Amino acid sequence: MRDDHLFAVIMAGGSGTRFWPASRRSRPKQFLPIVGRTSMIAQTAERLAGLVPMERVLVVTAAHLAGEVRGCLPALPEENLLLEPVGRNTAACIALAVLEIERRDPSAVQFVLPADHIISPALEFRASLEAAAAEARRASHLVTLGVRPTRPATGYGYIEVGEVLASHGEHAAHEVLRFVEKPDEARAREFQESGRFLWNAGIFAWTTCSVIEALRTHAPEIITPLEEAAGTGDLDSCYANLPALPFDTAVMERTALRSVLPIEYAWNDVGSWTSLPELLDLDDEGNCVSGGAKLVAQEARNNIVVGEEGLITALIGVEGLIVVRAGDALLVCPRERAQEVKLIAERLQNEAPDKL
Amino acid sequence: MRDDHLFAVIMAGGSGTRFWPASRRSRPKQFLPIVGRTSMIAQTAERLAGLVPMERVLVVTAAHLAGEVRGCLPALPEENLLLEPVGRNTAACIALAVLEIERRDPSAVQFVLPADHIISPALEFRASLEAAAAEARRASHLVTLGVRPTRPATGYGYIEVGEVLASHGEHAAHEVLRFVEKPDEARAREFQESGRFLWNAGIFAWTTCSVIEALRTHAPEIITPLEEAAGTGDLDSCYANLPALPFDTAVMERTALRSVLPIEYAWNDVGSWTSLPELLDLDDEGNCVSGGAKLVAQEARNNIVVGEEGLITALIGVEGLIVVRAGDALLVCPRERAQEVKLIAERLQNEAPDKL
Repeated sequence: MRDDHLFAVIMAGGSGTRFWPASRRSRPKQFLPIVGRTSMIAQTAERLAGLVPMERVLVVTAAHLAGEVRGCLPALPEENLLLEPVGRNTAACIALAVLEIERRDPSAVQFVLPADHIISPALEFRASLEAAAAEARRASHLVTLGVRPTRPATGYGYIEVGEVLASHGEHAAHEVLRFVEKPDEARAREFQESGRFLWNAGIFAWTTCSVIEALRTHAPEIITPLEEAAGTGDLDSCYANLPALPFDTAVMERTALRSVLPIEYAWNDVGSWTSLPELLDLDDEGNCVSGGAKLVAQEARNNIVVGEEGLITALIGVEGLIVVRAGDALLVCPRERAQEVKLIAERLQNEAPDKL
Repeated sequence: MRDDHLFAVIMAGGSGTRFWPASRRSRPKQFLPIVGRTSMIAQTAERLAGLVPMERVLVVTAAHLAGEVRGCLPALPEENLLLEPVGRNTAACIALAVLEIERRDPSAVQFVLPADHIISPALEFRASLEAAAAEARRASHLVTLGVRPTRPATGYGYIEVGEVLASHGEHAAHEVLRFVEKPDEARAREFQESGRFLWNAGIFAWTTCSVIEALRTHAPEIITPLEEAAGTGDLDSCYANLPALPFDTAVMERTALRSVLPIEYAWNDVGSWTSLPELLDLDDEGNCVSGGAKLVAQEARNNIVVGEEGLITALIGVEGLIVVRAGDALLVCPRERAQEVKLIAERLQNEAPDKL
């Protein structure tokens, strides 16, 4: 059913280093074809097709990444590209987009999505967004999507789920009892077994009125300067003084006007190279290849190989390695030490900043 | 002391696959800067400087490698480049060069050197070549250089050394009791401890007369067709029918007219990637880097990293790996499995011949 009030905000300002050397300062993960042949941001926009057309998709990113967004989303209208002078975490990013959509359509329902998640199938995803939009309108709540845990993950925040508030087709909106920060393994196991906890996917739906109201109540130090800057047009000095807060802690954890919509399909935030085996086909020895490179494996098992089309990687007798070749850089690292890629990135700041 | 009768033959027809992916069919190891900044063949020619000028250096290689030789040795006169239509092992290669030198100088003393060995210091090497030349003239023997074993190597042939035949300055020429093929480890240890065995370096000196005489006696099936072809000029059909024999087995093992000259300086035939730590500086963690790439190591030890200038390799928590990036290919392999690189090369014949 066509709904001209639906808008989507794609948050594309991230600059993580966990995908180095494929991701670089000038080209972070969301602009890379980590899984499949198009960039993650292009897949994110494509996933909305049929529900939110490109004219109502807004992308928020860092000023120096504007070219990457244009390259990945050639159909995005130029006025839908919102550039932040500096990164100030998701609360500022969301408030900036919220105010822009308010100017265009005060009756809008807004979806907010990270640019770099893998979600499938898209049809089910759009159905849950429609249900979230219905809940946002029904209750004037901030609605967040919650993912049914498939393992005791320690890398995600959790949402404790309460009573059913309303049903929307096959979906049910639930009370949010509380948000819980990344737990340790024992607690994560408890959460999963209890059946009462969902992963916090960081995907939201709300009406323009509800979110502005919530921002004014819980994060006035963010929305007030942004509203003033809309008058003066001086976003640079406004952003320089904005606090850098996650939307979850600034608003979601504080408001009572919130619902969570459990989703059951495949969701992955692709947090590091070790996410790839969950997302790609494995060969008989458990190796997976991303980016179109060819692998020749000789008694090599459970490796994650990343390389561009036309390249070949030969592995002999190695197991559980991450082997990434991208541009002028190469990374070799055991899967269980993937988090240390960040340390390499920190060292490169001093030792070889041009490789970062 | 200047000696215009000294000639050198550099054998540069090798096409081994043990240095894949740095070495390719079209550019084998001898044309690569495996150690240092110039190709191994350029270093081989440079090592002769002051003893044999380029006008008297002949290079024998495969027809399709002529361009590589010219690129590495721009000062080599074109008529000193001898091209074999097909590879027929070292006996044919040496016989071809021997006959060419005979045409130029029947009184020549010839040195024969593989293009892809590392020998240092060059001054001592040249001194031993002079001693070998003196022995070749004195006894009309085929003289071979023998390397004092520094470890119980199983990858080399050995020479059992007998009585001193003659002294030449600080060098002594010895009787050769026998050649022994690559031994197993126990035998190699015995050889080293006995003090009576030397590694067969495959470096020779002889007068033109002695070597032609030896070839006529022990390998007429090789030298006779080559002498005939010199008349007809049809090297292609001659080579097509030549047997492929190593000079060692075809001649050296059969003749009694031979001496060995022990050498004491550093010699390395750079047989595989695992030779590099013996030839390059190691960092504090035992890693070594060849080819000018930058290494960023995070708790990574005893790795061998090969990459071109301007590239960076980051290793996290890996030990004893060979990591080679060259052109469109990448190899990751434990040091102890370096020999299996040949298996990869065999697979590429079918799976990706353009990467070979």
